[in-house]
Amino acid sequence: MSVARVTTITARSSVSFEDAVRHGIERSNETLRNVSGAWVKENQVIVSDGAITEWQVTMEVTFVLDD
Amino acid sequence: MSVARVTTITARSSVSFEDAVRHGIERSNETLRNVSGAWVKENQVIVSDGAITEWQVTMEVTFVLDD
Amino acid sequence: MSVARVTTITARSSVSFEDAVRHGIERSNETLRNVSGAWVKENQVIVSDGAITEWQVTMEVTFVLDD
Amino acid sequence: MSVARVTTITARSSVSFEDAVRHGIERSNETLRNVSGAWVKENQVIVSDGAITEWQVTMEVTFVLDD
Amino acid sequence: MSVARVTTITARSSVSFEDAVRHGIERSNETLRNVSGAWVKENQVIVSDGAITEWQVTMEVTFVLDD
Amino acid sequence: MSVARVTTITARSSVSFEDAVRHGIERSNETLRNVSGAWVKENQVIVSDGAITEWQVTMEVTFVLDD
Amino acid sequence: MSVARVTTITARSSVSFEDAVRHGIERSNETLRNVSGAWVKENQVIVSDGAITEWQVTMEVTFVLDD
Amino acid sequence: MSVARVTTITARSSVSFEDAVRHGIERSNETLRNVSGAWVKENQVIVSDGAITEWQVTMEVTFVLDD
Amino acid sequence: MSVARVTTITARSSVSFEDAVRHGIERSNETLRNVSGAWVKENQVIVSDGAITEWQVTMEVTFVLDD
Amino acid sequence: MSVARVTTITARSSVSFEDAVRHGIERSNETLRNVSGAWVKENQVIVSDGAITEWQVTMEVTFVLDD
Amino acid sequence: MSVARVTTITARSSVSFEDAVRHGIERSNETLRNVSGAWVKENQVIVSDGAITEWQVTMEVTFVLDD
Amino acid sequence: MSVARVTTITARSSVSFEDAVRHGIERSNETLRNVSGAWVKENQVIVSDGAITEWQVTMEVTFVLDD
Repeated sequence: MSVARVTTITARSSVSFEDAVRHGIERSNETLRNVSGAWVKENQVIVSDGAITEWQVTMEVTFVLDD
Repeated sequence: MSVARVTTITARSSVSFEDAVRHGIERSNETLRNVSGAWVKENQVIVSDGAITEWQVTMEVTFVLDD
Repeated sequence: MSVARVTTITARSSVSFEDAVRHGIERSNETLRNVSGAWVKENQVIVSDGAITEWQVTMEVTFVLDD
Repeated sequence: MSVARVTTITARSSVSFEDAVRHGIERSNETLRNVSGAWVKENQVIVSDGAITEWQVTMEVTFVLDD
Repeated sequence: MSVARVTTITARSSVSFEDAVRHGIERSNETLRNVSGAWVKENQVIVSDGAITEWQVTMEVTFVLDD
Repeated sequence: MSVARVTTITARSSVSFEDAVRHGIERSNETLRNVSGAWVKENQVIVSDGAITEWQVTMEVTFVLDD
Repeated sequence: MSVARVTTITARSSVSFEDAVRHGIERSNETLRNVSGAWVKENQVIVSDGAITEWQVTMEVTFVLDD
Repeated sequence: MSVARVTTITARSSVSFEDAVRHGIERSNETLRNVSGAWVKENQVIVSDGAITEWQVTMEVTFVLDD
Repeated sequence: MSVARVTTITARSSVSFEDAVRHGIERSNETLRNVSGAWVKENQVIVSDGAITEWQVTMEVTFVLDD
Repeated sequence: MSVARVTTITARSSVSFEDAVRHGIERSNETLRNVSGAWVKENQVIVSDGAITEWQVTMEVTFVLDD
Repeated sequence: MSVARVTTITARSSVSFEDAVRHGIERSNETLRNVSGAWVKENQVIVSDGAITEWQVTMEVTFVLDD
Repeated sequence: MSVARVTTITARSSVSFEDAVRHGIERSNETLRNVSGAWVKENQVIVSDGAITEWQVTMEVTFVLDD
């Protein structure tokens, strides 16, 4: 692994933070090749009528560039 | 939404971080109107006799002020 | 509690962040006495072939020193 | 001035960041006495259909407590 | 809104910080779809012969990804 | 202790930082119940005619909410 | 440009943050040669009797040293 | 001094922050050789029944390793 | 220069941090036009069998957008 | 007060942090006019033969510029 | 790799920062098994009589714990 | 060493970061007496036509004040 790029995304789930992370990685795989990991830098919840409706994560996703 | 306030709370659960977040939002609803979300800025565990007894979160809770 | 030490560890789990925290506390108990808590300061995932293979946490573990 | 409190608010304006700050101070005056200043710690814009619709500031407002 | 990307840009204006923000959002709209907002994280001025010639902002622009 | 709130105050003393902390906790006790601790995050001095006239602290005070 | 110095100033205006920046650069030009730019790192307002009386910026001003 | 280690401790005193620092250095000397200094990175107070019962510091203690 | 983008990359070298920076800029030039500079925000080494095998940098690369 | 400068100093005392702050302000008064305050941003101790020999503070000292 | 520890060291060299990093890793290998990497978080130089006499790095060294 | 000042400079070299540090210390010696060290807080490169033309460091230089 010589050069990698880091891109920032936010992902949401109605279930949990970990489900949001999984969802974000899946979506990243659709457009990026060679995703090697991610750093979760923010955790937020969206609340509506007193209930948590979304668990949102902000992640820095790393993917290796082809030579 | 014109002006909102942000208040900091800590909440604990014997089960998980996400349960602590849910508990904190529920308690906030008792005294605050129009909670719109929260940012989880710290995750801690309390350990006793080698076992995790509490999962604690520190959250910044946002609620919209009435005009 | 008069003087405590803080040591930094990383722990991984194939299941979830919370399982990684539990694993890290268990491993700390093997070599440290009087662990009183931990602060989770980083959450990362390791991805291989498009799937999350490891949930990794970096934790600052506090343990009380004997007098 | 002996003891002061600091409270965090977000305020929005359709015009500019400075208008949002002014709006936030005005709203604070309605419920807080003796506001002495504020520190603007975040500037954000909300975009809709390609245009900026809101200029939002997050401010820490200080007000002096009566003895 | 399920997954969004965050991209960092710098934009300049000879007039004001707010004009630089507006300019940055306009340029982002040319290549990105569904821009939803931006966080202004740095404000700088460029000075030449004693006068401010450019007002520069560094912004994190968020845009929603199509499913 | 299940849910606690954190509020930010500044307090001043003509004597020392520690006296300012003590003063801030005393003032907090007048309006808040169940104060459990505080984190001192800023230390400042006010100088007039070359002499320190005030020792000022900014503190995050934690107090436990009744169930 | 080989070696430059960075100095921190605060400047105030009764009009706006941008006017305070302009004022700070003008004052810097009186005593410093070759000012090349500034980074605005803090924005504050001073409030008196419910109204904003001063817009204050803290800036790191860069100026190039003569060889 | 060629290589040194940095270890983090928390120490408490019923008297003052400076007494807690002194206490932490004394305890460090019992198990570490060649302590050369410490950086105090957190100051906290523990409050019980409205009174400060403990002044707590978190310190990064540096000690030189033997060759 | 009116609008620029900032992208984050990591680059590695078996020789030195500066060689890793050079390598990262070269790789950026292959896919980005008008690279104007980079800010090195992290320095890491990878160790295997007691020896440093890789010098890794994380860089924020700036490139100017065509009008 | 229209424009002020901020300068960083470190000061030491064999007695306490507060004595070091006082010493730093006194020394600043010798070369700077109109010192209005200081922000203490670092506290360190120097240890020799197991005892604290110096209490060191790093301070940002503000002084008002003459018009 | 399941659980790893992170320890902080400072290392010095009369030659360069990279030589100091190499020196720190070599010294770590003497007392720690399975060092896997290090993050360089501070770079400092010591100056005497106008010349740089030491290049000093502060590093967080990671080593894998045996099961 | 009783009171020291800290001043911020940027220095550039066409060769390497370490050469830039050396250049910055040399330039500081021309105007400051008793420079005792420096902390390198930023590393940047300037790129022109795809090649690194300048290695730039931002340093906080400490110098001891005469009594």
